[in-house]
Amino acid sequence: MRMYDLIVKKREGCKLNEHEINEMINDYVAGKIPDYQMSAMLMAIYFNGMDNDETLYLTMAMANSGDMLDLSKISGIKVDKHSTGGVGDKTSLILAPMVAACGIPVAKMSGRGLGHTGGTIDKLESIPGFSTAISTDDFIHNVNNIHIAISGQTANLAPADKKLYALRDVTATVDQLSLIASSIMSKKLASGADSIVLDVKTGSGAFMKSTEASFALAQEMVAIGNNAKRRTVAIISDMDQPLGKYIGNALEVIEAIETLKGNGPEDLTLLSLTLGANMLVAANMTENVDTGIEILRKTITNGAAIEKLKQLIAAQGGNTTCIDDYSIFPKSKYIEPITADRDGFVSHIQTDEIGYASLILGGGRQTKESTIDLSVGIILEKKCGDNVKCGDTICYIHSNDKEKTVSAKQRIKSAYVINDTPPASRPLIYGGIDENGHRYLK
Amino acid sequence: MRMYDLIVKKREGCKLNEHEINEMINDYVAGKIPDYQMSAMLMAIYFNGMDNDETLYLTMAMANSGDMLDLSKISGIKVDKHSTGGVGDKTSLILAPMVAACGIPVAKMSGRGLGHTGGTIDKLESIPGFSTAISTDDFIHNVNNIHIAISGQTANLAPADKKLYALRDVTATVDQLSLIASSIMSKKLASGADSIVLDVKTGSGAFMKSTEASFALAQEMVAIGNNAKRRTVAIISDMDQPLGKYIGNALEVIEAIETLKGNGPEDLTLLSLTLGANMLVAANMTENVDTGIEILRKTITNGAAIEKLKQLIAAQGGNTTCIDDYSIFPKSKYIEPITADRDGFVSHIQTDEIGYASLILGGGRQTKESTIDLSVGIILEKKCGDNVKCGDTICYIHSNDKEKTVSAKQRIKSAYVINDTPPASRPLIYGGIDENGHRYLK
Repeated sequence: MRMYDLIVKKREGCKLNEHEINEMINDYVAGKIPDYQMSAMLMAIYFNGMDNDETLYLTMAMANSGDMLDLSKISGIKVDKHSTGGVGDKTSLILAPMVAACGIPVAKMSGRGLGHTGGTIDKLESIPGFSTAISTDDFIHNVNNIHIAISGQTANLAPADKKLYALRDVTATVDQLSLIASSIMSKKLASGADSIVLDVKTGSGAFMKSTEASFALAQEMVAIGNNAKRRTVAIISDMDQPLGKYIGNALEVIEAIETLKGNGPEDLTLLSLTLGANMLVAANMTENVDTGIEILRKTITNGAAIEKLKQLIAAQGGNTTCIDDYSIFPKSKYIEPITADRDGFVSHIQTDEIGYASLILGGGRQTKESTIDLSVGIILEKKCGDNVKCGDTICYIHSNDKEKTVSAKQRIKSAYVINDTPPASRPLIYGGIDENGHRYLK
Repeated sequence: MRMYDLIVKKREGCKLNEHEINEMINDYVAGKIPDYQMSAMLMAIYFNGMDNDETLYLTMAMANSGDMLDLSKISGIKVDKHSTGGVGDKTSLILAPMVAACGIPVAKMSGRGLGHTGGTIDKLESIPGFSTAISTDDFIHNVNNIHIAISGQTANLAPADKKLYALRDVTATVDQLSLIASSIMSKKLASGADSIVLDVKTGSGAFMKSTEASFALAQEMVAIGNNAKRRTVAIISDMDQPLGKYIGNALEVIEAIETLKGNGPEDLTLLSLTLGANMLVAANMTENVDTGIEILRKTITNGAAIEKLKQLIAAQGGNTTCIDDYSIFPKSKYIEPITADRDGFVSHIQTDEIGYASLILGGGRQTKESTIDLSVGIILEKKCGDNVKCGDTICYIHSNDKEKTVSAKQRIKSAYVINDTPPASRPLIYGGIDENGHRYLK
């Protein structure tokens, strides 16, 4: 009857205490609470919410449900970065080598892509030989040795979140702030970093479509992180158009390498520098984000960052030739242009549709079991605000299947809106949440 | 994905249509929708409610999920009565013979008791030989022949309600007006009556503790009944103290017989007459409830009602000797008085506690599987407003087990509140809902 009482309590808008939430999560993972009771609880939470305390308790209970990574053998402040997911977002591949090149330990556990958003682990696997399944010992050894390691999440990281998320997914209870925040943060806390920089996306390619919702989610996650004694800040960045120009696994690694060589597109470069600079501040290397940006810029101009990426690739078994010779990456059979139907300005790109187009080509996963094609993707030639003439190429599709090309093309065409007048410009970075939980605007 | 979409729809406060509700109920009964999705839906309904249309669709879908009794072989308007359950409520045993004695067909499907409330079928089984498990053919034959039959509910009446209720019971989603009303009415509609008189109880022994909640439930059920083209009205009656003086299965049959002989307590007699008179109105025998009451009173004074009960007992295999010789009823071993500890007035009787005391003695069911002791129960000597002196007997416990007697005694003692001043008197009948859905006060 205990779980029944907890459902009534939450249904009546009362607060669950730490003991109750711990017991609930432990019993659920142990199979002692049936799904049908948990889904009633989730729907009650959907309607009545959870306060900061409850959200923290839930996050900690889920984090503690599996392995808690112990990074104490790595000296220095371990800083992690997490993005809520977007299209063309390859900032991890850029900022991790930059930050590591400054001597800050980057011990990064990354995920795989799902749905219309990509994952760092998939991207790295497009580098021939690169292994993301390294042991915890090797992981710690590499960070101590070269300040950087990137591995896939271990199987037993926050299993309670895995079970709960699967239930939320089929009971229409995903879309609740505390549940979203605790799901993300439970995995981050279990990953062992001392400090966390969050990149919360906003816009048509993001989970949170509105700026307000993105700020709210960021605030919730920063509160959890700091309440859990991990110094946490957040940036709210634009995902109303893809980040950079390359979308797809191998294609994104190539664009990341180009960016580390100083040839990256402006938006991708600036966001990578800003997030990286926040990591330097979190690691006490500098007090000021602007100074941090200057420090990181130098790692590009002096070649330290690209050299660090080379070290990372070598340490995890990859072929470092890829840094200078992109022909060793998986390549698609066909490259097909998409052209503009009219003169005008690109006024909007429905970004999740671009992500789905890449997924259709084989670059993403429909379900967790899908296998992906590392070679396919999209290269954008025109982005929001760009002037186009009828017949101009707006993007290229990289594909291995003509039928899929047709359907991706259709999707991309309808995602691009071309108007007579240029759109109001959107900022790249809207602002953020500082470690005291205060919002600031950029 | 369909059920997922329906959950989202209800979660967002939108209305489900007839097709959606039908499909949902059919698929749930067929096992195609898992419990965890249905419980999320139930919690969404708990928060966002259902309108009259949705409630009707749900009721009809549940009624249609099993057998729909066909009473068309019985000539005349078949009127049923249903009570939301109380302590000491034996009105069915009184009004059914009275109404049948007027020539109105009474085809009554009754339930068994659960928790602190009793059931007509259990009570009837305390009559030696009486069978409540008669075939549908015998049931219809008896109603055509002697205007009365009372049988237990068939196993396959509204199975969707059975499954849904079991889920609501463990997910804290019982307590929602539309769900309560549709659960009761689905079984009533499946039972085949043309017209339904509802007795909605209010007070400490009722499911609905407040008068307002009882009126609201009555209004919801009357709307369903009339929308389903069954002429339906409701009475809101007091259950803030037990009805009559006898509680327990055999004991209640004895009190019913006494009432049919004209010796019943005032509250029980008046409520039975009022509900019965509403049945006469529903059957078009009279337009006026007061006239109906006079017609029914005559069936007591002229012996027609007690004769009808005798016919019922005989037709269903029971020993009619019981009408005049109560010694053939099951009898308890011990009769133990409970006395007042002080002088004063009985100001309150916590009625559900009296019901639980009877349950503890063996007179009721803790779970559906419990067997019951037909002989045990409680006889109240003092009711609300009665003057008592210290040492007066307030009631007698009829028991077969000394330990159970002790624990029942404790419960009854704390249920009785004796004060210096008499309580404000509560009406027996608060009012009702007419067939147009309008409330009236008595």
